[in-house]
Amino acid sequence: MQEVAVIGIGQTKIDEHWDKSLRELAGDAALAAMIEAQIDRVDSIYVGNMLSEAANMQAHLGSMVSDWIGQRYSEAIKVESACSSGGSAFRAGYLSVASGEADVSLVVGVEKMTDSPGGEVTASLATAADADWEVDQGVSFVALNALVMKRYMHEYHWQDIDFAEFSINAHANAVHNPNARFQKPITESLFINSPMICAPINLMDASPIGDGSAAVVLVRSDWIPAGTPKIVVAGSAAATDTIAIHNRREPLWLSAGERAAKNAYAQAGIGPDDIGVFEYHDAFTIMAALSLEAAGFAERGKGPTLAKEGMIRVDGKIPVATRGGLKARGHPVGATGMYQIVEVIQQLRGEAGETQVPRNDFGMTLNIGGSGSNITTHILKRVS
Amino acid sequence: MQEVAVIGIGQTKIDEHWDKSLRELAGDAALAAMIEAQIDRVDSIYVGNMLSEAANMQAHLGSMVSDWIGQRYSEAIKVESACSSGGSAFRAGYLSVASGEADVSLVVGVEKMTDSPGGEVTASLATAADADWEVDQGVSFVALNALVMKRYMHEYHWQDIDFAEFSINAHANAVHNPNARFQKPITESLFINSPMICAPINLMDASPIGDGSAAVVLVRSDWIPAGTPKIVVAGSAAATDTIAIHNRREPLWLSAGERAAKNAYAQAGIGPDDIGVFEYHDAFTIMAALSLEAAGFAERGKGPTLAKEGMIRVDGKIPVATRGGLKARGHPVGATGMYQIVEVIQQLRGEAGETQVPRNDFGMTLNIGGSGSNITTHILKRVS
Repeated sequence: MQEVAVIGIGQTKIDEHWDKSLRELAGDAALAAMIEAQIDRVDSIYVGNMLSEAANMQAHLGSMVSDWIGQRYSEAIKVESACSSGGSAFRAGYLSVASGEADVSLVVGVEKMTDSPGGEVTASLATAADADWEVDQGVSFVALNALVMKRYMHEYHWQDIDFAEFSINAHANAVHNPNARFQKPITESLFINSPMICAPINLMDASPIGDGSAAVVLVRSDWIPAGTPKIVVAGSAAATDTIAIHNRREPLWLSAGERAAKNAYAQAGIGPDDIGVFEYHDAFTIMAALSLEAAGFAERGKGPTLAKEGMIRVDGKIPVATRGGLKARGHPVGATGMYQIVEVIQQLRGEAGETQVPRNDFGMTLNIGGSGSNITTHILKRVS
Repeated sequence: MQEVAVIGIGQTKIDEHWDKSLRELAGDAALAAMIEAQIDRVDSIYVGNMLSEAANMQAHLGSMVSDWIGQRYSEAIKVESACSSGGSAFRAGYLSVASGEADVSLVVGVEKMTDSPGGEVTASLATAADADWEVDQGVSFVALNALVMKRYMHEYHWQDIDFAEFSINAHANAVHNPNARFQKPITESLFINSPMICAPINLMDASPIGDGSAAVVLVRSDWIPAGTPKIVVAGSAAATDTIAIHNRREPLWLSAGERAAKNAYAQAGIGPDDIGVFEYHDAFTIMAALSLEAAGFAERGKGPTLAKEGMIRVDGKIPVATRGGLKARGHPVGATGMYQIVEVIQQLRGEAGETQVPRNDFGMTLNIGGSGSNITTHILKRVS
């Protein structure tokens, strides 16, 4: 397979964009990436999105985006795997170029959750869980995560406050990211006094939804003159687990994440110690802890230890959520995986400003769909 | 890229399956294909589906299918491009194996339109059109096709009755397909006297919705011992056009179809005269005519001529809808493209019984998403 390089990135601020439609959001990020890449024609387009059909009454986002950005006749489809749709779309774009089928591929993650004519967002988000065996019982997506967190706290003897640092770190980093939904710091006191949503998940354990889009342009890396600095895809992997948590052998272990991470490490020929920045899927603090464990940065049950010891800070052993993470940058579900990719590229380029990580040869993303039922990992590498 | 072979097929009858859930339909087709292929483990799963999120309140079909059929840990995503979702999913599975990323890929098209808790089907189908500029005006999907048909009749001087043979042929062939939604013939008299839905489209111009699933197993063709008969993917292509018809330079010409077909012919090293069976997208009779023209079987405006001269019959120059087509086999939207693939394989294997075509070296599918805004073509080839 061809080696694949990322040559352009684009993103919108995550916000309540009352003045931007779905296509405008996608177009803003896509065109920014194409302008940066100095590319005016792409062969294939992959749109990562979860909710458009229900929330925006618009399916067929491949054609919608291709048309809107003037790429008529290119190949274009939507890719969906719940909250990992962005990561899955990036992987589809990667395979499109790696296989030799496309020379230039555009990947766009987009979600518009504000001004949703199609219905209520909590119900739409629940479609990521098992409709027949979970949602039909009245369990929302927050409730599923709360069940996991409660059991995790019981098994490994953690308290609510032990998860605070995941959110405090995310908010501290988001202060310096102009595209973040919330650009203000939070304190431990604010965390522990925040309203309970679904015990033990409080408001500060949970990431906010939002409208947003992030995009990249991918090309064969041999298009880039030898000796020129470039960023390549060193590892790309995905795996599934049971859609319903109750069918999982180990509900407190992200088996799909472990599989995908090991596969990506093997492709890149590296291990967890080589990763200088890890953009993980902190939709809830429990998922932050489980992601650190599945990707090999912490032992089982020890995710919160890393956080409490300051190891997840920008100057720590394994910086995470360096641009705010899902918690503070925001979680426009189907777009989130693409924000992770774009942010890792900012780090590898040395363009992360106040939250620049010191070691930026390798960066990793871990994007979770459902309650751990579909996990995509990517390792990006700076080559100079 | 690796040459890719299809080694197993499966399908359910298209019907109102009140006793089968979405996952059961998908599982029935997928497991039938895997049993036929004698494969018990797949590396990747691509699910073609359009409406599940809105109609079935279930997103995340990759994980749902992977879990249900015991393929936990495989990679699995949903692919959506409106009514060409099935063709797009097949193409994703093809690229997965052709690239060398997967040794074995499973592609499943599935749609469940009966017993839809998420809302009314006509509104769901309209999400394939442009939500902001078409649907917002109150135009349904049938109405968009009626506008095209009316203009086509005006430009090329056709009457309603000139489209009858598309439907008569489809129904004649469906009589012999146990998986078809309607297994009964229709007459010209029934056609012309059928109720008007949206002038000039009458009930017999339009295909019926339904519940159903069709699946295939794909492998690298060098897995199959030399000299053994096999069916390979000789051409695979896709292209987009504007999502809204009013932005199209030539509303009566499927530009995306022409592009995709030419690309597929070039890959296969053949032309229209070599195709022995053409499973086209006769969602409405006007789309049957336009498909024949875009794929090079008829001149502009002459699609109905082929039909009137009996050339589209099983023993004609270019047999179409040989298992009933969308009109009589049925049109479970996101699954339809996979039914087309499965039916062409039946023909190439010589397993089409009463409707077996005489020339079965090459078969072609043309699957349309939206009103011509996303078109996927595949050419399958029988080797030895």
